[in-house]
Formats: sequence, C-alpha cells, structure tokens
Amino acid sequence: MPLYKAPLRDMQFVLHEMLQTEENYQKLPKYQETVSRELINQYLDVAADFCENELAPINQNGDQEGCHLNQGVVTTPAGFKQAYHKYTELGFTSLTADPEYGGQGLPTLLRIAISEMLCGSNWAWAMYPGLSHGAMRTIEHHGTTVQKQQFLSKLISGVWTGTMCLTESHAGSDLGLIRTKAEPNPDGSYAITGEKIFISAGEHDLSENIIHIVLARLPQAPAGTKGISLFIVPKYNLNDAGDCQDRNKVICSAIEHKMGIHGNATCVLNFDGAKGYLIGPENRGLNCMFTFMNTARIGTAVQGLAASEISFQGALSYAKERLAMRALSGAKYPDKNADPIIVHPAVRSMLMTQKAFSEGGRALAYFLAQHVDIVETSNDPEQQKISDELLAFLTPIAKAFLTESGNEAAKHGVQIFGGHGFIVEHGMEQIVRDARISTLYEGTTEIQSLDLLARKVLKSEGKLLKNMTDLIEQFITANQSNVVLAAYLEKLTELKQQWLSITDNVAKKAQQNPEEIGAVSVDYLYFSSYVVFAYLWARMAQVAHEKLSQATQDEKFYQAKLTTAKFFFQKLLHRTQSHAAAIASGAEAVMELEQDDFAF
Amino acid sequence: MPLYKAPLRDMQFVLHEMLQTEENYQKLPKYQETVSRELINQYLDVAADFCENELAPINQNGDQEGCHLNQGVVTTPAGFKQAYHKYTELGFTSLTADPEYGGQGLPTLLRIAISEMLCGSNWAWAMYPGLSHGAMRTIEHHGTTVQKQQFLSKLISGVWTGTMCLTESHAGSDLGLIRTKAEPNPDGSYAITGEKIFISAGEHDLSENIIHIVLARLPQAPAGTKGISLFIVPKYNLNDAGDCQDRNKVICSAIEHKMGIHGNATCVLNFDGAKGYLIGPENRGLNCMFTFMNTARIGTAVQGLAASEISFQGALSYAKERLAMRALSGAKYPDKNADPIIVHPAVRSMLMTQKAFSEGGRALAYFLAQHVDIVETSNDPEQQKISDELLAFLTPIAKAFLTESGNEAAKHGVQIFGGHGFIVEHGMEQIVRDARISTLYEGTTEIQSLDLLARKVLKSEGKLLKNMTDLIEQFITANQSNVVLAAYLEKLTELKQQWLSITDNVAKKAQQNPEEIGAVSVDYLYFSSYVVFAYLWARMAQVAHEKLSQATQDEKFYQAKLTTAKFFFQKLLHRTQSHAAAIASGAEAVMELEQDDFAF
Repeated sequence: MPLYKAPLRDMQFVLHEMLQTEENYQKLPKYQETVSRELINQYLDVAADFCENELAPINQNGDQEGCHLNQGVVTTPAGFKQAYHKYTELGFTSLTADPEYGGQGLPTLLRIAISEMLCGSNWAWAMYPGLSHGAMRTIEHHGTTVQKQQFLSKLISGVWTGTMCLTESHAGSDLGLIRTKAEPNPDGSYAITGEKIFISAGEHDLSENIIHIVLARLPQAPAGTKGISLFIVPKYNLNDAGDCQDRNKVICSAIEHKMGIHGNATCVLNFDGAKGYLIGPENRGLNCMFTFMNTARIGTAVQGLAASEISFQGALSYAKERLAMRALSGAKYPDKNADPIIVHPAVRSMLMTQKAFSEGGRALAYFLAQHVDIVETSNDPEQQKISDELLAFLTPIAKAFLTESGNEAAKHGVQIFGGHGFIVEHGMEQIVRDARISTLYEGTTEIQSLDLLARKVLKSEGKLLKNMTDLIEQFITANQSNVVLAAYLEKLTELKQQWLSITDNVAKKAQQNPEEIGAVSVDYLYFSSYVVFAYLWARMAQVAHEKLSQATQDEKFYQAKLTTAKFFFQKLLHRTQSHAAAIASGAEAVMELEQDDFAF
Repeated sequence: MPLYKAPLRDMQFVLHEMLQTEENYQKLPKYQETVSRELINQYLDVAADFCENELAPINQNGDQEGCHLNQGVVTTPAGFKQAYHKYTELGFTSLTADPEYGGQGLPTLLRIAISEMLCGSNWAWAMYPGLSHGAMRTIEHHGTTVQKQQFLSKLISGVWTGTMCLTESHAGSDLGLIRTKAEPNPDGSYAITGEKIFISAGEHDLSENIIHIVLARLPQAPAGTKGISLFIVPKYNLNDAGDCQDRNKVICSAIEHKMGIHGNATCVLNFDGAKGYLIGPENRGLNCMFTFMNTARIGTAVQGLAASEISFQGALSYAKERLAMRALSGAKYPDKNADPIIVHPAVRSMLMTQKAFSEGGRALAYFLAQHVDIVETSNDPEQQKISDELLAFLTPIAKAFLTESGNEAAKHGVQIFGGHGFIVEHGMEQIVRDARISTLYEGTTEIQSLDLLARKVLKSEGKLLKNMTDLIEQFITANQSNVVLAAYLEKLTELKQQWLSITDNVAKKAQQNPEEIGAVSVDYLYFSSYVVFAYLWARMAQVAHEKLSQATQDEKFYQAKLTTAKFFFQKLLHRTQSHAAAIASGAEAVMELEQDDFAF
C-alpha cells in the first residue's frame, strides 16, 4: 500500500507562490480579515496529519472489507465511523459553511486543497463528507429560512450528513427522463415515490440522520428537464424540536457491487411515499441543483488529481527500491545486484508523466477554486463576470482532463510495479479501480466535451474561449523578455492560434452538420486541456525561474519544477497534434456505418 | 455480462480472404494434405460453440468466486473443471502437438484463432491450457526421448497440465537475478529448492498431474542470465509405468490476490528439494525457454485482441439498447423517449476505435501465426529466413500494442456503459481488470519496446525494419492504380519514410548517449505499431474493395470493413505524430531530474 504523504510543499507553491492567495484574497471583502498565508498553512497541516494518520491507514481495508447491508442498515468498513467523528471534531465539515449556522465561512480554495488530501489518502471515505457538502450548499442557497434552521446547523456540524439523489436506472446523463414522483400532502409536504440508484453515501452509520436532496416530478409537471423539482427528504422525520423522530419511508434496498470505491456505500434508495419538502421553485429543480455544478465538478477533478498524486507517490518509492537490470549507459549502483528501476528512462518517463499531471492538475484545480471564491464574494462585478466566464469554460476541461489524466497516471503506477502492480496488497491496482469512476460520474468525459464545445465555446460564439486565449496572450506579453521561457511562449503562441482556428473550422462545419460537434468534441476537449496545462506549466516555470533568481533555500524544488515544465512541453504537449488532426477529419468516418453493420 | 459471440465472419475474412491460408499452406509440406478452408471452419465452429456455451457462461462467476486454497490444494471456480474435461474431449489440447505422441499436428495459426475465442469468452480459464501448451512445447523441442515418452502424451491428451516457473519475488523482468537452486542427486535427477511467484495455473484441480518447467541454477553456475538451467519438475513423481506415484516436494503456499483473472490460480510455489530433471543443455535454460518466446508473446497479444473484441461486443449491444438524449441532428427515434446512444458520435467513436483495434489486432496476430508456421515447417530456407526476421520484428509490436489497445478498448467499453460500466454485474469492468495483466506479464510494454528498438532495429542496423518497410512498399507498388486506396497509399508512403528517418535519427543520437534508446523506445513502439496497423488496414481495405467489385452477398460486411479502415486512417493513425514529436525531443527532459528531486 503506498504511504500517503500530503504534498504540502507543492500545495503551498500553488497557493502562495503561483496564485498569491493572501494578496488576492485581501481584495475580497469576505476574506480580507481572515485569510492569510499562516491560516492556510495551519489548516493544511492539521488536514495533512489527519489524512496521513487517520484516513490513509484505513484506505486499503476499506476497499477489501467494503460496506455491509443488513435489512436496510449499512455499516461502513472498520475505522470509517471513528475517522468521521475525528473529522467533525476537527471542524472540517463546517469549513466553508455560513457562519450564521455555525460555519467557518472560509474560502472554497481551502476546501479544495484539503479535499485533495482527503481523496488522495482515502477516496471512498472522502465521498461521505463530499456529498454532504453538496446537500449543505443546496439548502444554503435555495432553502427557506425554516429549512435552513431545520437542517443546516446539523449538516454543518456534521452530526447529520447529506446526499444528492439524481440518477434512476434508466436516467443517468439524461436526467430529463426521471420518473420519481412528488405528490402534495395536505400539510404542505410531498409524498416522494420512486427508485434512485447510484446514490453515493445514500445510507451508512456515520451520522444520526441523512438529508437527501431528491429530484422528482410534481403532478402535471412538463415532460423533460423543465418538469423536475427538488426536494429535501430526511432519513428520519424531525419533531418540533428539530430532532430525529420516526423513520421516513426511504430505505436502502441494495448496495452496488462496484469496480472500486468499495468503502463508499453506493445505494439503491427506494422512496415509498417518503415525506419531502420542496426546495427552490417548482419545476426548476435541475437549475437549482446545477447552481453548484461547477464546484461539484471541480470536486471530481480534484479526485483525478489526487489519483495522479498517490499513484505517483507509490510508484516513486517503488522505483527507488526495486532492483532490475542495469542502466543502458552503464551500472549506476555497481555494488548492488542490479540498478534501481528509476535509472531506466521508460520508468522515469512514466514517473515524470504522473508528476506533470499531478502538479499541473493541482494548479488548475486551485486556480479554478480561486475563481469560485471571486465569483461568490467579490464586490467587483466586472471581475466576477470574468471569473464566472472563465469558470464556465474551464470546468468541463478540469473535470474531464484531471480525471482522465488521473486514470492514465494510475495506469502508469501499476505499470511501474510490473507484475506486482496487479497484486492487491501493493495497493496500486486499487487506485486504478477507485479512479475509474471519476470519468463516469458527475458527467462523463463525453458529456463534458459537449458542454465545452457546444454550450461554452460555440454558444458564446467563441467569447468564452477568447477570454482564455486573452489570458494566455497577457502572459506571453508580460514575459516576452524572459529568455528561459522563450521556447514555451513560442509554443503557446502557436497553440493559441491553432486553437482559435480549429474552433473556427469546427463552427463552420457544425453549421452544415450538427453531428460534427459530437464527432470532434472529445478530441477538442483534449486539445484544449493540453493547451490550458501548457499555460499553467509556463506560469509555474515563470514563478520557479523568478524564485531561482533570488536567494532561495529551495533551489532543488524550483529546479525540479522547471524540469517538469520542460518534460510537459517536450513529451506530453505534442499530443495536441494528433487531436488536432482527428478534429480536422470531422464526422464522416464516425457517422458512416449503419447501426446494424457494426458487427456481423 | 456481455454475451460472447465468436466473430467467425471476421475470423474467416482474415484467415481465408486476407491471408489466403488454404493456398499458402499448400506450399508447406507438413500441412499440404490436411489444411483446407473446410477443415479450419469446422474447427472454428466447434470451438465457437464450446466458447459461447461452455466458457462464457462460467466467466463471470469465475471472477466472483475465484480460486480456493486449502492446505496446498487449489480448487478452481464452479464449472472450470467440467469445462476443461469437455475441452480435452474435444481434442483441443492436442491441436498442434506432435502426432508421434498423440498430437494432431495442425498449424499454430489455427491454435491462435481458437485461442482468441477462448480468451474472449473466459480469459482466466483459457490460461490453464495456455500454460500447459508452453510446457508441452518445451518438452517437445528440448526434451530427451525418454522425457518425451514420460511426459508428452499425457500433456497432449490433457490428462496432465503444465506450467512455466520463471519469476521470483525479486526477479521479474530481470531473470538473471533468480536464485532457485538445482543440486544433483545421485540418480541423475536434481533437487530443486527455491520459491517461485506469479505461477499461473501453478496448482489446481483440473488435471491429474502438473508438470512444472522451472528455471534454476546449478552449483557453480555463472552469475546472471548465462547460469540458468531448465528443469522438469512434476507435481507427482512417476512410477516405472509412468503413472503418478508420490507427491513431489513442490507445494503451493499461497494464491495471489489480484486485480483480475481471479479464476486462474496465480501461485506461490515452494520447491523444497523437489525432484527435477534437467531439460536442454546446462546453463542454457533461458535460451531454451525463449525458443517459444515469439509464440508465447503472440499468445498474450491474442489476449489483448480478445479484450478488444469482447468489450466491443458488450458495448455495442448496450449502445443499441440504452436510451439517452437526442441526436444533435434531430431525433432518430421520435417514438421513443430518447434515442439509443449509438446515435451519438462520441459513443460511435469509441465503438469504432474498439472495432478498429479488434479487427486490426486479429489481422496482425493471425498474420504472425502464419509466419510461425512458415518458420517451423517451410522447406524453403529463404522464405523461412524472411518469416523469422519478420516475426522477430513484429512480435514485440504485437505483444505490446495489442495488449495496450486491448486495455484502451476495455476502457471505452466501460465508458460507453456510463456509471453502469462501474457495476460488477454488467461485466464490463471485469474486462478492464482481466486485461490489465496483459501489458505486464510476458514482458512489460517497456521491455517489448526495448526489444523492438534496441535488439531488433538497432542491433540489426535497421535490417529488420527494412524488411517491414519493403513489405509496405511492395503493397504500395502492387496497388498503385487503385483509386479507392490512393489516400491510404499516400499516407503509408509518407509514414514509411518518416519511420526510416526517425530510426536514423535515434540511431545517431544513441551513439552519443545510450539512454536515448530507453527514453524514446515506448513512443517508437507506438509509432511503429500504428504504421503496422495502417499497413494491415490498407490490405484489408484492398481485399474488401476487391470483393465488392465482384458479385457478393456480403456487401455490407465489406463496406463496413472499408469504413473501419477509413476510421483508422482518419482518427487513430494521427497518433503517430505525437509519438514522432516526443521521439524527436529525445532524452534530456527524461533524464535530467536527480532521483532525490522527484518529490519534496
């Protein structure tokens, strides 16, 4: 099992040196007084300790033991409950929540950074508070005062947890198809009836009550996505004092057998006239739920980044220990029977790839989280708009690419272990199995690619893309005289132009044939992702170079940053070109075959 | 669970139409009398029936139940034993074996085609006869007459099975490090002592005896790979009549917990002075074992192809049934709530990718198997040499690329199922878990890439590559006037040139710095693989086009072949260019970082 070590130095590099959080958050009224470098580091230290010493040790057993269902009661793996109580004691459930209901009112950026450590040390466990956070935010933003009073404090303190109940067995990506019904009760509540599947943390033993946020249809609601409303359905109904009373009619009828994240209970929930409360306007449930789509997707992106990081850590320590063969340029450790495999370039390439994905992913996720905070708390409408548009554009990229690259990194992690990577005890294959869900849930990679190309780029007539290429241009202009960056700036200039011209071409073709969009969207997403990474890697190189030009004790750290930037530009960024060529070839070969002619 | 349907039509296309097996085997004395189109089809039909109706139904349970170890006794999952007896009754264990010992003396090509179906319907099960075949071949080629008499007939009839015992816990890719000892006994046998790990089919309940082929060191053997000898170590010692007598001192002390292939017992075998018999010359064990390295690696390549095929089959049937959203160009099935997801280009792209990998992989694997038969049985030394060199060159490509593309196809299979792909019951995630071993065992992808670039291409000073590019050139010349192929031939011409010039550059750089080889070998392998696939897809397109120009009832089949060729050229072949660019950037960014500076 790879030991998890929170990558604090690199997290601090992104937070403080690249994104200059303290300075930037001075401009945000809500955080002016509170957010400082010291405060952030203190929280990170506490979280790192919790993740390394509480969560990581129960990760592998959580996978092996899994969750147990016995007559509707779900028991989580050994240690999960204790860890959750420790987590609430440390106050992490209330981190970003509203101070009026006991929250600490801290930035999303801090939550995202901590979340990286939670996911890296124990993905399955981290989903319990993760889902709860979604429910909490929904009630914070769409609940009535009464609903907030009833549910919010206990969710924030962590005594209760929450879920998001969207999927039904026939309706996943296409939520317009859901059938769960909500019928009005005389007392103003609703009777919710239907079956929801894939409900993460849907039932468990960590908390006293579980507050489900459920998508359902009112009687006579319009068909499709415009007829869906949102309901609060508690596991236990509340008495007048707001405490748990009788069991509501929602039960867990099954937990799914899954490829990974065994420690998280993925439930089939049966609502059988369960008492629920409308939250938000009638028939606007999807809109309410998607208020937080960006943050939820950044949360999933972080899981991908976490997979890159932990698989890198595991593979790195093995590559230093495992002896096999000699370096092609001659023995590096002639006193040993063989050289450690880290001397071999093929192994190094995989490690560098994992490192480039992990550190680049961290930069992207934190960058976005900072813009979430700006959108939510800035008093400068201009800046809010810029951040909001940037978020809209970059979120599908972050969600899809950080999870896909997390999967690739996890694959390399197994590969570096050779046959031992296939063996459960080493823990490397668990990372592959856990990470596999991340390109599926919260919108598949294919859904993200349509969101990016159709909704964000083409619908805005290129404006959202232009924001991003302007950002790249500003960076290029600001660093024109930097010789260390010259090669990167040249490449960025070239790719920026290519990105715009590819987009133009796709837009033209799509006017003739709308299928063009779906036929190239995934390649477009990858192309865009590598360019965004190139921008971030160039920025990181710029910071590292600046630090190296000053007196620093961290010379090796910054030097490694420069090498990793170089590796990204020289070895990974060229992937843009195969995607560009695939985009250029359009829809023809994709659409040609009749459905019945795929197999004979 | 995806239903397995043997892809007989496409198998026949490759065997009969593309590779013209009947015609070609008329030139091979051994097969002149026996091998006909009818005979091949009969065998395929029987095997297809066995795979579809005996193996496929026990595949998922095999994964779920796994193998059981109780005091050294391994029990395979329900149905595995019965299926094995059926398999021996059908005579499949003796297919290619020496008629002198009860074999049928049929070509490797037929075995490979059948093996594709075995692996596609039940990978874990197929490994039992697969390993047995390796042991059988070793004894056939290196055994004394007495050894053949003792062991061969019962291995061929399938009453006994065999294994290959190479790996030790500290020695996987680097077999030079193995420590298992062989000490001479007074009776001419040897006492074998040591621990072997990762022994597939090392212990089980399918057969009366298990014949282990074991790598070990004689006393005073030279260190490294030149001091390893090969031994036959039966599970049960034989009496004078050749029947099982007492238990030999080899026991299974553990079965591994693995990511996949749960139905196959991967054993830790302890040899504690077990009685063994030297096979082949002293200290030449690795050479003897590697006599069949090409065929063994083609066998693993076939597993990769099988993963592509079965994940394609599963995903295709789901994509036709599952309803979600409408086609971007307007509803295709307005009478339904939504369109089947096969209308969506992103889904189609994944299906077409799986299809291109599966059919291209089939062409490559069968092509190679045909050359194995030529090498082994032709009476034309010139042709043997050509085939032998082609095999040497193409085997690492087939092994690495068919398994890597099998993994990619399996990933798409899960992705097409969305969240349901993550659920065990659908069987799609099992394909991912099973297939994951294939890029690790029988030489990792990285080992294959070094074999290709260092041993095959550079050591032959480009000769082995030249054989291949000559083949491509011949094809181009022969089809110059074919307008349907024009775009493909142009692309092939271009890539052939690029391949040669890349190789030249790498050779030059490697003279300065040997690390250049390892730093680019994996990209070189991928580049080469896509070009080889392009050659095969062009050949298949040529055959399909020819058939379409004649009267045929299979018009749609050939048309689909042309579309898939087009898809390969337009959507997948461009990947060569990102690999070419990565190769051009060389070793610098890979080798720069000090071992201690990968993480801080």
